[in-house]
Formats: sequence, C-alpha cells, structure tokens
Amino acid sequence: MQFELTKEFLEEIREMIEQNNSAYIDKRIIQLHPADIAEIIDELDADEAKFIYQHLDNDRQGEVLMELEDEVRQQFVELLNPKQLARQLENLDSDDAVDVLGELDVDRQLEVISEMDNEDAAQLVKLLNYDESSAGGLMQTEFIKAKLDWPVNRCVIELRRQAEDVEKVFTIYVVDNQDKLVGFLSLKSLLFAEKKALVKDIYQDKNMVYVTTNVEGEEVARIMDKYDLVSIPVLNLQKKLVGRITIDDIVDVIREEADKDFQMASGISESVESTASIWRMSRSRMPWLLIGMLGGILGAQVIGNFETQIGKIPALAFFIPLVAAMGGNVGVQSSAIVVQSIANGTNQFSSILSKVKKEALLGMLNGLVCSIIIFLITWLLQNVMLGLSVSIALFIVIFFAAIFGTLIPLVLNKYNIDPAVATGPFITTLNDVVGLFIYFMVGMAVFSL
Amino acid sequence: MQFELTKEFLEEIREMIEQNNSAYIDKRIIQLHPADIAEIIDELDADEAKFIYQHLDNDRQGEVLMELEDEVRQQFVELLNPKQLARQLENLDSDDAVDVLGELDVDRQLEVISEMDNEDAAQLVKLLNYDESSAGGLMQTEFIKAKLDWPVNRCVIELRRQAEDVEKVFTIYVVDNQDKLVGFLSLKSLLFAEKKALVKDIYQDKNMVYVTTNVEGEEVARIMDKYDLVSIPVLNLQKKLVGRITIDDIVDVIREEADKDFQMASGISESVESTASIWRMSRSRMPWLLIGMLGGILGAQVIGNFETQIGKIPALAFFIPLVAAMGGNVGVQSSAIVVQSIANGTNQFSSILSKVKKEALLGMLNGLVCSIIIFLITWLLQNVMLGLSVSIALFIVIFFAAIFGTLIPLVLNKYNIDPAVATGPFITTLNDVVGLFIYFMVGMAVFSL
Repeated sequence: MQFELTKEFLEEIREMIEQNNSAYIDKRIIQLHPADIAEIIDELDADEAKFIYQHLDNDRQGEVLMELEDEVRQQFVELLNPKQLARQLENLDSDDAVDVLGELDVDRQLEVISEMDNEDAAQLVKLLNYDESSAGGLMQTEFIKAKLDWPVNRCVIELRRQAEDVEKVFTIYVVDNQDKLVGFLSLKSLLFAEKKALVKDIYQDKNMVYVTTNVEGEEVARIMDKYDLVSIPVLNLQKKLVGRITIDDIVDVIREEADKDFQMASGISESVESTASIWRMSRSRMPWLLIGMLGGILGAQVIGNFETQIGKIPALAFFIPLVAAMGGNVGVQSSAIVVQSIANGTNQFSSILSKVKKEALLGMLNGLVCSIIIFLITWLLQNVMLGLSVSIALFIVIFFAAIFGTLIPLVLNKYNIDPAVATGPFITTLNDVVGLFIYFMVGMAVFSL
Repeated sequence: MQFELTKEFLEEIREMIEQNNSAYIDKRIIQLHPADIAEIIDELDADEAKFIYQHLDNDRQGEVLMELEDEVRQQFVELLNPKQLARQLENLDSDDAVDVLGELDVDRQLEVISEMDNEDAAQLVKLLNYDESSAGGLMQTEFIKAKLDWPVNRCVIELRRQAEDVEKVFTIYVVDNQDKLVGFLSLKSLLFAEKKALVKDIYQDKNMVYVTTNVEGEEVARIMDKYDLVSIPVLNLQKKLVGRITIDDIVDVIREEADKDFQMASGISESVESTASIWRMSRSRMPWLLIGMLGGILGAQVIGNFETQIGKIPALAFFIPLVAAMGGNVGVQSSAIVVQSIANGTNQFSSILSKVKKEALLGMLNGLVCSIIIFLITWLLQNVMLGLSVSIALFIVIFFAAIFGTLIPLVLNKYNIDPAVATGPFITTLNDVVGLFIYFMVGMAVFSL
C-alpha cells in the first residue's frame, strides 16, 4: 500500500483531469497523504494542479501547499487572492505560515495579514521579524505547556484543550508563573502517573536543553543531533518560553546545509535550485569562473616566462595540463577531508600540526606512486629527460598541494570564512599556478644538466 | 546553563585527572548529559578517558559509549573484556548494541554474545544478519504495540509494562492477532481517550506508512522526510511488525550520505574519517588521481599532435591551463546541479531535454561573458590573434562543458551508477582533453587565416 508515483499513474491523472473527471480525483487522489498529493502536483502544469487543488477541503489545501516544492508553491500562491491565502495560513502551523508569508513581497504580505484574524496576524508579524535561518525563524508558536502546581488530572484536561492546535505532541514544557521554562514532562510519564500527583513531582529538570531565538539554524541542528532530540524549546532573550522547533524542520536545515556545501565545493556561490532563472544561475556561477580565469591568466604569465625554453623543447608543454590538474585534484581531496572534519566538529582541539603532518605524509605517498607511474609512461612515450622532469615536478606539486589543501581551509575557518568555499576555487587555482611554476623550474634544471 | 567544552575546561579536566581527583569528576562531570561526557572523552587520551569512564554507573557507561566518535569507541571497546562488554550491550537499545557488536571481529562477537542473557543474545544475532545500511540494520526491536480489542485502560497498563524497555515512545503500533500491523495510535489520542473506549475505536489506519527490513537506509530517510515522521515501523517480509526506526538514526544516515557525496565530488572514492590509517586514505584517493593522470596523458597526446605549431607560436602554450581549467570548472558546476536534483528527487519526470537546453543556454551566456573578458586581456597582454584564438576556443569549451556536465550524471543515473561520482573525475578529465583539442584546432584555424 506504499504510494509510488509511476509515469503511468501520472499519465492517467493527466488524462482524467483533461476529461474533467472529478469522480476520479475524489476517488483516487483526495484520500492520499498530503505529501503524495503534493508530489503529484509538483509534476503537473498550473491548470492541472489547480483542478486537483479545488477538490481538496480547506485543511488539506494548506497541508498540500506546505509540501510542494518551493518554486511550485510560489507559483501557486500567486493564483490565490489575499482572502483565500489568509484562510490557508490560519490553518497552517505558525512556522509554515510564516515561511509562505515570507516568500511574498511586502505589499502582498500586508494585504494577506489584514485579512487574517487578529491573534493569528499578531503572531505571524512577530515571527516575520526573526531572521529566517535563526531559531526564531524556524520555531512554531504551537506547543504544549504545563504549570508546576497542576495535578495530573487537571494537566490532562488543560492539555486536551491546548492540543487542539498542536498537531504533534512530543514533550510538554513545564513553566513557572513567569512563563519561564523550568523543565520537561514526557507524554509517557504523564500517561503512567498517579492521578493525584502534581506536575512538580513527575517533571524532569536535569540536562535541560533549549535554544534562544537568536541561535543559528545550523547550531540548532548540531544541538538536536548531539542530544538526539525530536523537539527543542525556544526561549526569548528574557528566557521566556516562546516556541519550539521540531526535528522535521531541522532535517530540512541539515539537507539545505549539505546542498549548500556541495554546491560551494562545486564552485557555485549562492544556493540555487535547478528551477531558478538563468540570470540567477549565471550570477551564482560567475565568481568561480572569474577566479578560474584569473588563475589561468596567472598561469599564462608563469608559462610566458619560459617561452624560450618551450620554443626549444615544445614537448615540455605537453604535460602542462597533467601537472596543473594533479595539483588541483590533490588539493581538493585534502581540503575536502579538513572541511568535513571542521563541519562535523570532529576532534576540534587535536592540533593543526598533526593534521598537516598526516596530509604531508599522504602527499608523499600518493606523489611517489603517481611519479613512478608517470616516469615510466613519459619515458616510454617521449624520453628519459622529459620523464625525469615530469615525475620530479609531479612529486613536488602533489606534496605542496596536499599541504596547501590542508592549511587553507584551516586558515579560512580561523578567520570565520566558511571553509567549504576553499574546496573549490582557491585551492584549484592556487595549485594550478604554483604547480606550473614548479614544473618549469624542474624542467629547466633537468634539461640544463 | 548550556554545556560548552572550552579549551580551559578541557585543561582543567586533564589536570584533575592527573591528580586522581575523583571528587572533581563526580561533581563536575558525572551529572552531565551522556553526549557531553562523550564530547569530553573524544578529546582525551585512552588513560584519561578510562579514569572518567570508571566513575560512571553501568547505565551511563553504555549511553556514553554510544555517543563517542566511531574511532574513539572502537579503541575503548577493545579495553573491555567480553563480560564487561556484554553487560554494556544489554543496557543499550538493540540498534545501538548491534552497531557496537558489528564493529568487532567475528571471534570477539561470539565471545561477547556467549556472555549475554539468552533473549538479548538471540535478538542481536537476528539483527546482525541484516545489512548495516538496510532498514533491518537500522531498526531497534524496542517498540510499543497494542492489540485492536484492548480497552484503553488495559492498554495503559500493558504499555506501562512494555515502556520500561523503550526509552522514547512516539507512536503505539496497533497489531492484529497475527502481529500484523494494522494502524497507529498516538500517545496523545490515548491520553485523551475515554477509559472504556477500545483501541479499535480510536486508532488510525489511514495513510499507514512503513518499510520492510530490506529497504535501503537512504530510502527510509526519503520516506521519513517526505511524511515528516519521527519514527517508522519496520515489517519483515511476512509483513509482521519486527521493529522501528527513529529519526535520530535517520539524521545520521542523511549526514553520512551528504558526507559521502561531498567526498565523492572531491575525488575520494570511499568514505573515510580524518582519523583513518594512511594506507586507507591513500587507497581512497588513488582512483581519482589515476583517472586524472590518464586525462593528463591523453592531454599530452593531444598537445603532442600540435608540436610544430607550438614550436612556431610558443605563446599558444601559455593558455593551455586556462582552457583546461575552465572546461573542468564549468562541467563541475553543471553536473553539481544535476546531481543534486537527482538526489533530491526534484521534478523527476521533467524532460532531460529541457535540463540540457537550460544548461546549454547558461553555457552560452557564461561563455560569452568569459570570452569577452579573456579576449580583452589577451589582446592587451599578447596580440589580437592570440586573443581571438583563446576567446573563441574558450566560448566553445564552456558551451560543451556545460552540456557534458549535464548529460554525464543523467546517463550515469540511468545505468544506476551514483551520479555524484561524475562531479569529480569524469567531467574534469573529459573536459580537459576535449577542451585542449578544441583550443588547438581553433588556434590553428585563426593563425592560418
């Protein structure tokens, strides 16, 4: 009974929509999980999507809206008038509602907010003020709290009332009379407690983990991951409980972070979706291309200094791409490991020196293997002198590339620059230029023997 | 009151351990969260770590053990005799216990298992048979189940008994008399139900999401992410409920997957930690280096065909690194976007043709910008003929690199090869060689004008 969107099923849905077959939609689509309906809509064009959307009741419209891919949702939201959109947002959790609202321009935001009921509107306006990527921007204001002096049976009654607004209950937050967080109560302990017990007898205040609204999303992810939490309370700067963040939103943060790092390492400077406009995509890629060009021009200058040598021994030029590429490759490998161990906070205090030492040793080992292979091949294809030049140069280039690859992300990190950026442009470009210089110096030395 | 391991605190702990100061450990360390204690131990050497470990009671020893970094834990486990280790494993959740057990060699596994009580041992042996990265290998056998015909009050009593073994209760699984999963019951609905209601009156069977033991971990992550689940039931191939997977383990799967992709894109072929042995690290990096060398040698052959031209116009050689590097850069950028949209399952059915078209357009745009810049610079630094050669070649190279970068991961994916591998070696190498060929062909054409 697991849902799978096959090509055939998608074709069938499209055909039924074209035939205006409401009965089919009601029977086959409407009762699916909102995430499945969203998966279908993601693949349809605007008119087809609208046909399905109209068949959903208000509650499910909101849920499906949240599950759509960002770009698809933005197109969709534009089709709704402010009043319709306001109704949808009231049905959503506050963190989801503020995400949708945040995607609109300011005029439209005001129009939609003015159509909402006062309480919801006030809450959303407050949430809109937080930075999107901070705990305040990630939190939802729906959560369940209990007071210290409540007896268990009153607690259950109060919670039942509160729980109407809260879709998923993981932990009950225990607060004092000033709304300050003092501890936790699990549903499990509440379920198994004596009816006459008080909250203060059964709650837990040891190892209380929370974040404040200004904490960065990545840091929230690190904390929830470390302590294996499914939800975490959020306090404002006066230490009052104002919201909670649930793990599903943090999984999104982790994925986005990983995507960003991957793109950065691939030379894409701002996070873009594959559906972004061509201008935005071009802009996001231009910085690395320009750095790459700069490296290429510097490389040209370096080679230019050896023009007469190349004129005499053109075969020296044959191995330019090999030397340049290998320096880049080794540098990227070394930096990737360092960047990851920084990102994961692995052994943060183990000394920089020991890391560099290890990479240097590894550089020597890999350099030796590659040099021997290239010596034999070059000797065979060309001559022993060229073989010597290329293999000695390659060994030195790999050795230095390994050291640069390790040092650069460590230095960037020290100056609070995201070291992931180093895995791409800096290292490749630097190693290209340095590698070429080493190669021609070695070449001159060997051939002048 | 949030825990932070500062350099000063770490120094202090080390000093106190050296002084054999048990009182300090008991007062400052023992009451910390197990994850915090593990963070401290990760930074200590074996003897220091052991000193702290001995001060923990049995339960917490197990918890701390699980929170250690893999390498640190493996060292630690070797210090324990089979009996001690067996006691620790009995205290752990079954999925954690089997992870620790799986890291041992087979002889040691048998020794430890023979020291465990029969029931625990039988369970672990069963779990050991599953592939580590499958749902069976990720699941724990501790979960809570209820039968359809139980009244709510009996349910609470039964669950209280079961819950002793289950650290975190998210969902109660409802099974029939054959132990087949028929639906769910949330703690929330149980808490708020009438005492006389039956489980079958209040449980939910709509949109039942589960996995079978053979499903891959990545797929489990995709499903839990899609449906925003904090735990998912695992069925065996006879559809009987045998375990559950919780979100904290899936967060680890997502992180490992992201790390693996990042490393693969950086030319590291097997996932290695920064603490792995130098031989393993060398082996993990060699494949890309060899592919890079092959590319370099092919490049040398291409350039070799133009030896006489270089002899006449050595300046042609100056821009070899620029052309090669830019082809690689553009290819990596294009492929990164495609690899990510494959990994995230974005718009899976939108046609390949439209993706290639978009990247081709982007290639032309970026190629045009880069070509104009390089034309002006080369003209200034060298002469107009070289400027024309380099800029025309660069435009063509960027255009083709964008198309190759898009097509290669799509083709690899079609043949079920992880497309992430393409972002590194294939694309860079291919574009190096093709780029050089294009460059010299254009150069010949321009200079023979």
